[in-house]
Parts: sequence; structure tokens; C-alpha cells
Amino acid sequence: MTDDLVRHRTAAARWQGVDVHAYKEEGSAPFRDVTRQVLFDDVLVGAQLRYFEVAPGGWTTLERHEHVHNVVVLRGRGRCLVGDTVHELGVHDLVDVPPLTWHQFRAADDESLGFLCLVRQDRDRPQLPGTGLTGTSRPGPAVERQLSGARRPSSPPARRRRVRTVRRNR
Amino acid sequence: MTDDLVRHRTAAARWQGVDVHAYKEEGSAPFRDVTRQVLFDDVLVGAQLRYFEVAPGGWTTLERHEHVHNVVVLRGRGRCLVGDTVHELGVHDLVDVPPLTWHQFRAADDESLGFLCLVRQDRDRPQLPGTGLTGTSRPGPAVERQLSGARRPSSPPARRRRVRTVRRNR
Repeated sequence: MTDDLVRHRTAAARWQGVDVHAYKEEGSAPFRDVTRQVLFDDVLVGAQLRYFEVAPGGWTTLERHEHVHNVVVLRGRGRCLVGDTVHELGVHDLVDVPPLTWHQFRAADDESLGFLCLVRQDRDRPQLPGTGLTGTSRPGPAVERQLSGARRPSSPPARRRRVRTVRRNR
Repeated sequence: MTDDLVRHRTAAARWQGVDVHAYKEEGSAPFRDVTRQVLFDDVLVGAQLRYFEVAPGGWTTLERHEHVHNVVVLRGRGRCLVGDTVHELGVHDLVDVPPLTWHQFRAADDESLGFLCLVRQDRDRPQLPGTGLTGTSRPGPAVERQLSGARRPSSPPARRRRVRTVRRNR
């Protein structure tokens, strides 16, 4: 009965019985070198606890959504954008991402960033910059700076280029 | 707006803006050397993420309840009892505690055990051994072994003695 109730860590950020998935479907959104593991997904809790690992130099999608994130850094080092502010992140730092707040996680250039992310099971899909957003619903200047620091994916998606064009014309 | 959205770790298992509380009210249940910190408690998630730290040689209350626990070990080393089985625990190990399953967490004698514990916000109160439980709802032999390994609190509560008496008479 109890054998799978404890799942030991088998290596750094690997666990018994936990599959390592792609962060998102390739091409569905801009990101670089991110994996996703679902550690807990219990209907009796109503929330999922996922583990994301961003490889050195990698970054998650810049996005926002109604549902919130509660994040605990498990390993490594990096930065996150939340709203208008970029924060340095280290082991065990905590991050709240409120509803409809632009956010992105980035690993350091020389170290990966691994974090737990708690979300409710029933949640909305992320919005991306430049997808029909107008006025104040566009990312702000800090987002632009964060984007400017991004290493470009080999074929940057049209919607990221569109954001930069909008900002440049102001 | 964003200043408290990132709460940095200030020392081992201490965070900006997170108070360290007693695990439970002293005398309300048997336990030894445990602290509690609430890292996230967001109605928009519907779940709480707490951090418990058990000092070397300490242990949480042996208890069970309808609500489940999703646990991630953050630091240290110890053991847990879940149902009938005692498991060794190390950093980043994962523990599921299903509904109405006896469980207890213990630190190693020479090292503390710190773990995240995810629960739903709306949850029932724990049951303790010997409080009106009968038949199969009593803790099993593994629980008894776990209890036998416990360092006794200076004045052990009556309900823990009662469990031991029941088991001895079988």
C-alpha cells in the first residue's frame, strides 16, 4: 500500500516515478531549455505542485494569466520578472505571482534554476504579449528590458517581434 | 507593488516576512521540537504551503485526518511513518499522506528535518491515537514500533500511554 507514498530523489531534481516532460509544446510559445515535472496532482488538495528546471541561460515564457503561482526555488540561481520588477533568485527564495501579472523565470548564465510552482488544478490558459492586448494590458518597460536581455531563440516567434516593434514606436 | 512578491531566504529556513510559530499549542498533542512557518496561504489557490522544521531528535504528532498532505523535504534527514511503513527521508524526497492514514515525521538524532507540507485551506482537525478509536481504526504494529522508538516527552500525555497499553495486551 505504502510503497509509492514516498518517492525518493534519485539524482539532482529527479524522483522515483516522476517523468520529465517538455515545458510546453515546442513552437507553442517562446521559451528556452525548460523541463517540467509534476510532483503532486491530487484532487483532494485541488492544487498541483510542479517542478520546473531552467538550464543555464534558459528562460520560461513571458506570460500572464488569472491563476496565481506560488513558487519556491529548490536549486540554482537566476532572476524572475514579476510585474514591473526583476528580482535576483537563489535557493529557497519565495515568489508570488498575482493574477494577470506578467512574469518570467530565467536561469543564470552559468547555473540552472529549479523551482517548485504551486497552482490550482482548475486554471485558465496563459496569455502571451502581443496577442490582441491593448493599452495598459501590454507588458511595461521592465518587461521590455527583460526581453531585451533575452537570448533570441533561433527563430523568434512573430508575437515577440511585434511587442518590440510596438515599444520602439513610442 | 512588487516588493513583497519576492521574499528572499535570510538564513537557513528563514524568510523575509515569514514568522516562525509553535508547531501546535503546547500540551494540545504530543510532539517534540517542531516549528511551523506558513509560506503561502492564498485563497486563489485554495491551498496552504507550510514549512515545518523538526530539530534533531524531535518528532511531529502521530495523527491522521481526512485531508491529505503533499510533502517535499527541503533540508536535513529523518524518517516518516505513513500507514504501516517507516521510510528514511533525505533532501527533496516526496511524501504523500492519504486520507485517514497515520503519519509522523522524525528528525535524525544528529540532524534536523525540514519539509514543505501542502494542504487544502479548508480541512478537518487531526485525530490522535486512543481518542475513541476502535478496531481497525487504531494504529497498527508499525506505528507501535515507531512509538517505541520515540524519546518520551517529560510528561507523556495519557492518550499515548493508552495506545501502548492496548498493544501490549494483544
